[in-house]
Amino acid sequence: MTGAIQEMIELLARLPGVGRRSATRLVFHLLDASPEYAHRLGTALCQFHNQIERCSECANVSDMNPCPVCSDPHRDPKVICVVENIPDLWAIDAGGTYRGVFHVLHGLLAPLDGVGPDDLNVDLLVHRVEQGDIQEVIVATRPSVEGEATAMLIRQALEEQSVKVTRIASGIPLGSELEYTDSRTLERALQDRKEI
Amino acid sequence: MTGAIQEMIELLARLPGVGRRSATRLVFHLLDASPEYAHRLGTALCQFHNQIERCSECANVSDMNPCPVCSDPHRDPKVICVVENIPDLWAIDAGGTYRGVFHVLHGLLAPLDGVGPDDLNVDLLVHRVEQGDIQEVIVATRPSVEGEATAMLIRQALEEQSVKVTRIASGIPLGSELEYTDSRTLERALQDRKEI
Repeated sequence: MTGAIQEMIELLARLPGVGRRSATRLVFHLLDASPEYAHRLGTALCQFHNQIERCSECANVSDMNPCPVCSDPHRDPKVICVVENIPDLWAIDAGGTYRGVFHVLHGLLAPLDGVGPDDLNVDLLVHRVEQGDIQEVIVATRPSVEGEATAMLIRQALEEQSVKVTRIASGIPLGSELEYTDSRTLERALQDRKEI
Repeated sequence: MTGAIQEMIELLARLPGVGRRSATRLVFHLLDASPEYAHRLGTALCQFHNQIERCSECANVSDMNPCPVCSDPHRDPKVICVVENIPDLWAIDAGGTYRGVFHVLHGLLAPLDGVGPDDLNVDLLVHRVEQGDIQEVIVATRPSVEGEATAMLIRQALEEQSVKVTRIASGIPLGSELEYTDSRTLERALQDRKEI
């Protein structure tokens, strides 16, 4: 095993979830596959970072600025859903029912990992609320210690604004069995009960 | 999700063992990682097929022709080990005790999958034996129906040559328990018993 093959295995093995063994398998797949595919993937990788922009409004990443969400005239720019990262944005957007815009924090508050308030994209959110005619900020961070702390941070940051700050509901997932739901989720579901 | 990100996910999802979900994860890893890495991997992919040559002696693939094995003066060119594919070549070579050369078939006889004798790199092997002063051909295909059929094919192809054709041993793997060895392997181990 030499030169180019060795180098390719080492480069691929640096991807998350790809060990040396899978990298070797990928290399043999590439050797068997059409050179056009390797070339197309290679070219796309070379251009990738240059093509991707961070939206100056909401910090979504795409090859447009403003991003497709922010530039969609059919969306309600007065409702902002705050998410931890892009996959979370996609997950909510894929549902198709949310028609507001987003704000991507690119992280959650995690002091033990050295992520403080200044490392999150909160200032831009405050700026958006100050400038625009925003009615509601929905904090859609995950229901974990970090997610809750981040939600509190956002509530505090927007304290002096006349905007409604809400938090997505936590509780028992639809279709799941109470019997198999963890006790903290059950506790939360009881706590957050609502009149019907 | 648009344009460049979408395209990258689709390209990566075509790799074996990489679904849409892992492809998405890889894309976010690439976005977070240094642009240099994406660029290096991209460049390597673009050049990959042009750099790789098939050895005109043994059909090993590397960026040299003859390959590093065939051009190694410390190896014995009179002993040829026949393997199914490059990973098998590497596996035997990694052991470090085999000091002969190789011959890569790039497949095994599999009539049901449309792989016939002409699809395997056997003619070149016969040619090597005819031309060179070869003492032994070790058939190291796997002990499966296809591997055994391929071994028989090679024995027949070399029938008129004065070369010794051998087959690697099958039996109980070192360190494993007889209790957990499958019956066919046990049967083979008994059949191929040798005096001690």
